[in-house]
Amino acid sequence: MPTPHTDTLDLTDPATFKAWSRDIVRFGDTDALGHVNNAVYATFFESGRLTVLMPGGKRTAPDGRAWVAAKVELQYRAEVHWPAEIAVGTTVLRLGRSSARFGQGLFVGGTCRATAEVITVMIDTTTRKSAEIPEETRAALMAAVS
Amino acid sequence: MPTPHTDTLDLTDPATFKAWSRDIVRFGDTDALGHVNNAVYATFFESGRLTVLMPGGKRTAPDGRAWVAAKVELQYRAEVHWPAEIAVGTTVLRLGRSSARFGQGLFVGGTCRATAEVITVMIDTTTRKSAEIPEETRAALMAAVS
Amino acid sequence: MPTPHTDTLDLTDPATFKAWSRDIVRFGDTDALGHVNNAVYATFFESGRLTVLMPGGKRTAPDGRAWVAAKVELQYRAEVHWPAEIAVGTTVLRLGRSSARFGQGLFVGGTCRATAEVITVMIDTTTRKSAEIPEETRAALMAAVS
Amino acid sequence: MPTPHTDTLDLTDPATFKAWSRDIVRFGDTDALGHVNNAVYATFFESGRLTVLMPGGKRTAPDGRAWVAAKVELQYRAEVHWPAEIAVGTTVLRLGRSSARFGQGLFVGGTCRATAEVITVMIDTTTRKSAEIPEETRAALMAAVS
Repeated sequence: MPTPHTDTLDLTDPATFKAWSRDIVRFGDTDALGHVNNAVYATFFESGRLTVLMPGGKRTAPDGRAWVAAKVELQYRAEVHWPAEIAVGTTVLRLGRSSARFGQGLFVGGTCRATAEVITVMIDTTTRKSAEIPEETRAALMAAVS
Repeated sequence: MPTPHTDTLDLTDPATFKAWSRDIVRFGDTDALGHVNNAVYATFFESGRLTVLMPGGKRTAPDGRAWVAAKVELQYRAEVHWPAEIAVGTTVLRLGRSSARFGQGLFVGGTCRATAEVITVMIDTTTRKSAEIPEETRAALMAAVS
Repeated sequence: MPTPHTDTLDLTDPATFKAWSRDIVRFGDTDALGHVNNAVYATFFESGRLTVLMPGGKRTAPDGRAWVAAKVELQYRAEVHWPAEIAVGTTVLRLGRSSARFGQGLFVGGTCRATAEVITVMIDTTTRKSAEIPEETRAALMAAVS
Repeated sequence: MPTPHTDTLDLTDPATFKAWSRDIVRFGDTDALGHVNNAVYATFFESGRLTVLMPGGKRTAPDGRAWVAAKVELQYRAEVHWPAEIAVGTTVLRLGRSSARFGQGLFVGGTCRATAEVITVMIDTTTRKSAEIPEETRAALMAAVS
């Protein structure tokens, strides 16, 4: 399977994404500054990746392997206030031998509030070392974002 | 406005409720026991009360007054697992001079997973003492649950 | 082992407790009202119970059994603001055949901000039904609060 | 005040840091994978930055200005399990006209579990546009990390 070519992707454009998660902002997500706390965005982006890594709650990693987050880069573009509904679009920017790089956009009412680029690594759950992503897992990921 | 008569209400029955909130379970809501952490239920029940106390994000308390939680009783009836959607039904069990007692049911796929009874008190935000609930606030609450 | 006699316990008095947990308030624990969100208190009280149910992270439940929360009653007495350190005292109010009732007090700087009474039930992890609390588990609980 | 020279800083070395925050891992911080959820790290790193941006809960931003997070880069290096105590070291990598770049390391028992680089921007709370960092704020930040 070819590596997706994604250099020209605009993560602030909803049209970039086919895989979407939804979250509902909770009052407890706000902080004393009156807006949604910055750390909660990491949770919303996790919801987005899980639509690809565990669609419908089902594992794409085979037995004995697991996905772990290695690097998360969040870019904050606008505040989010309660009440609101969150939509996160997720795509695969690159599939390596043992890691996947995701591009994500977080939207409220169609306007982008944050973007993220995230690297997750497939590990062997016994050795805790990186392991090759099986072909069927690659296919499942690419199907989820296509 | 008469106090609602609620002795016979069954909080495990969805038919008891007209006011509903929705939440989407997040992976981070789970804990190392594999199910949604018990403290998160308090957040879901807060979502439910806010559909009555702040419908659409608008305050029912007049300027200079605020609602504060005084007592929360949670009864756990069944586990919740990720992924799932939560529906919380909320009704008013009793409206006193300065406090309201809510009855709530938390449902996943139509089955009750938890119930709650919660007392919130209206306070004067300057003196921090309890204050009478104005007639228009009473009307707004009863409208939200009717 | 006799059931503890606890009718006269004052949960707002630090002297009531021998088992203590500590938590540090996080900025994200606050909400748009400027104080610690009411649902976070349930998390602090969980920390307290775990000093008794899993002292040092070690299970008191034997293999094949687990503790689950059945009922949580929280009484809010004063707000908590960031930054602050939380101390929760926990004692056993009653040990039944298959359930334990805990009394808890939440303190900041020596003053009580909330109290809780919580029932946890020991279940068989296979049948998910309540199961008798073994004598060694009873002894471990009573040792933790004495 | 000169911009700090930080190209050679090792964020995985506790000796890099003079400003430290502490957090206590909560059972609810874990997720169904049995370890602390990746989004919670963002909360721990926020605790660290606040020891510099709001030491002792006091604002370093003058009236009419506020700090907002613009970019957060998290690098995960090892899992964290409950129970544990977290220490986050924070230093200033660069102080620009209206933004600050922080370097952070997250440690449990002296071993680094994650690092972060974070850009926060000072904004005018009326116009919501970036604003120059006053000299006294610069001095307060540098004092907090020295």
